[in-house]
Amino acid sequence: MFKKILIANRGEIALRVIRTCSEMGIKTVAVYSTADKESLHVKFADEAVCIGPAASTDSYLNIPNILAAAEITNCDAIHPGYGFLSENANFSRICEENNIKFIGASSDMIDSMGDKATAKATMKEAGVPTIPGSEGLLDSVEQGLKIAEKIKYPVILKATAGGGGRGMRIVNSPDEFQKAWDSARQESAAAFGNDGMYLEKFVEEPRHVEIQIIGDSYGNACHLSERDCSIQRRHQKLTEEAPSPALSKELRERMGTAAIAGAEKIKYEGAGTVEFLVDKHGDFYFMEMNTRIQVEHPVTEQVTGFDLIKEQIKVAAGDKISGKNYAPQAHSIECRINAEDPEFDFRPSPGKITTLHIPGGPGVRVDTHVYTGYAIPPNYDSMIAKLIVTAETRAEAIKRMKRALNEFVIEGIKTTIPFHLRLMDNDVFQSGNFTTKFMEEHTYETL
Amino acid sequence: MFKKILIANRGEIALRVIRTCSEMGIKTVAVYSTADKESLHVKFADEAVCIGPAASTDSYLNIPNILAAAEITNCDAIHPGYGFLSENANFSRICEENNIKFIGASSDMIDSMGDKATAKATMKEAGVPTIPGSEGLLDSVEQGLKIAEKIKYPVILKATAGGGGRGMRIVNSPDEFQKAWDSARQESAAAFGNDGMYLEKFVEEPRHVEIQIIGDSYGNACHLSERDCSIQRRHQKLTEEAPSPALSKELRERMGTAAIAGAEKIKYEGAGTVEFLVDKHGDFYFMEMNTRIQVEHPVTEQVTGFDLIKEQIKVAAGDKISGKNYAPQAHSIECRINAEDPEFDFRPSPGKITTLHIPGGPGVRVDTHVYTGYAIPPNYDSMIAKLIVTAETRAEAIKRMKRALNEFVIEGIKTTIPFHLRLMDNDVFQSGNFTTKFMEEHTYETL
Repeated sequence: MFKKILIANRGEIALRVIRTCSEMGIKTVAVYSTADKESLHVKFADEAVCIGPAASTDSYLNIPNILAAAEITNCDAIHPGYGFLSENANFSRICEENNIKFIGASSDMIDSMGDKATAKATMKEAGVPTIPGSEGLLDSVEQGLKIAEKIKYPVILKATAGGGGRGMRIVNSPDEFQKAWDSARQESAAAFGNDGMYLEKFVEEPRHVEIQIIGDSYGNACHLSERDCSIQRRHQKLTEEAPSPALSKELRERMGTAAIAGAEKIKYEGAGTVEFLVDKHGDFYFMEMNTRIQVEHPVTEQVTGFDLIKEQIKVAAGDKISGKNYAPQAHSIECRINAEDPEFDFRPSPGKITTLHIPGGPGVRVDTHVYTGYAIPPNYDSMIAKLIVTAETRAEAIKRMKRALNEFVIEGIKTTIPFHLRLMDNDVFQSGNFTTKFMEEHTYETL
Repeated sequence: MFKKILIANRGEIALRVIRTCSEMGIKTVAVYSTADKESLHVKFADEAVCIGPAASTDSYLNIPNILAAAEITNCDAIHPGYGFLSENANFSRICEENNIKFIGASSDMIDSMGDKATAKATMKEAGVPTIPGSEGLLDSVEQGLKIAEKIKYPVILKATAGGGGRGMRIVNSPDEFQKAWDSARQESAAAFGNDGMYLEKFVEEPRHVEIQIIGDSYGNACHLSERDCSIQRRHQKLTEEAPSPALSKELRERMGTAAIAGAEKIKYEGAGTVEFLVDKHGDFYFMEMNTRIQVEHPVTEQVTGFDLIKEQIKVAAGDKISGKNYAPQAHSIECRINAEDPEFDFRPSPGKITTLHIPGGPGVRVDTHVYTGYAIPPNYDSMIAKLIVTAETRAEAIKRMKRALNEFVIEGIKTTIPFHLRLMDNDVFQSGNFTTKFMEEHTYETL
């Protein structure tokens, strides 16, 4: 087992890794920017090294400084957390070259899963369902009609140069095709000076459902069931839960089996997440694979009993996993508490926390690096705490979350606590019957 | 279901009840003494009523004031917590007479289980093992020898007027009997002016193991397995855990069955605890029954998934239980964090908390009513927080507890955190092979 691990991250995830290392008897080295010298991860690590000024590029993304910190403190492994260098193939490779174990995916794995087209092709080969569509650009309406017939309507025409919804048309039947083709090409040409179009199956009422997997260096992989992360705002997850209210036992098994097939195909090592879109028919499609621990990992820990950081460290050190899959044993919800003002379009609200009171009691877990008197620097991500509750059923977990949110007192800054309170009270959320469009259909005011 | 519950208690248990009520959609009324007006249970309840000055007899034990508070706020039930009025038969009866549901045992039940001789006789009738011995005082050495032969050596001679170990003699074999008898009688006569003696089986290397039970008003009862509370100092529990490191599955089942037999015999309603001594041979003996929630209830909640306060409220409102028993699914340890100075014989250390930092992360639960700036009044129990950790195994739970204790920062007063840290590091504690004598054999200094 490793003797000393450097944590190349900050905030709650740095503290999270320190906690597990402490329980495993592994020494830890924190790195920090000058803006973070009062952060808890610095206080709770066995050693701490300043790696540069506030700007991430000068500190948490500064590979030479982080490597130097690992070498002077004699670390035998680096845990990258999430974000920053966690999916940086170059960093993974440099660690390998310096005989420091990177607790994450190999550089090749990061490269192949980081490139969306390669990832999709690889998963398709492994039999994982991917969104069907044209191979590259469409030549003609006729070609489009032929493909659409094969992959079944509705389909979506997308401008290859598109973005922000422009140059996109949903087509529900063959007779709509020509009109959609013409107007999408026109719009795209006007907007981007490029009228290239490709075609995809349109995923109706999509939910974001991801499967947590773990693989070891002996080719074994298992899954720990799913997380539902459909509540997103501008592709940022706000609330996650396990299990997904949309999955039957049968669908969970099918998705788990697909994720494992993908993981085994690429001989995946470590903790990873296979992200899928699930449509209203219960069909699911591979979106991407994350080769790192995720922010929302605690809900999986809560419903399976696993310590995912510990599993990451163990397989990185060469331990075997059992290969057994795990079904959820309870219901867990996580709310990301951000230093943002929901009343003003979630604008960041850094500053000093003058009062902090953390909720407690049964079924409540809080992962946070902040404390009374802590000044949130404006330089980084605005997430300041993760509030995770666990109960027997989803309805009870929602009630528990409301109770815990009401106990959570953070003064001196604005936070997303009021948003989460409204979300927990929202009928659609409570019904469990929502899609990734939820936050387009609702605002803080209309929740 | 009840609409509004008055909580006739203070501190963490008042907050604990408020949390569950909040999740169940039941309104709460806190009562408080003038010393407690800044306490969290006052802030988090829907309503709060001052019931008198600091002295418990004038406030938390002041039945007329508490009843008046329940009546003016229209409460339909009272939760007494633990301590104070929780096992006061008179209070239970007065509540019944005033048509306010007492969430606890009936006055008759409290009376019969509160009287040790009645409780023991009742349990014996139900087939629950009790400590065998003489019925009342011994007439002669001959009678003593006869009984000792029947109940088997070692036995203990006890002065009926005794206390503090005086007038007590352990007898290991018949040839030691006469000498022990003479010296115990002599000592007792000198110390108490009374040489009456009785005889009991001597429980070798006793552990305190208690079974959590729940009964409903339809005569159903179930048990939720055991807690080990052998780590005590002067009969005050310091650390509790579930499951007991001393119990085999088979012994757990036998003790559970015995506890249920006792509960069914008396048609027990509500949550209760049947306390046993377990000796080194795996024999167990009924000690007493507590007809209330206990301080250490969270470890049972953690390993069974139950919310015991919710179960109390539900059966008090007339709900049925399933009658199914529950085996532990994990290992949980609770450390009672007291405002006491372990370096000075655990003397109380009331005062203002200048800094509070509560541990978090996976498997950590904190039940506390204190916060930064809170002044601990000198009038009440010194317990200020319960730190509960849960992990897959006992060894992992101990490591997690050490990690959480190290994160726990309470400044301005002395606490028992340093004691618990030493306890978790102690070889005997780690071995799981300890008895109720542990804190006689160890001091804070020698741990």
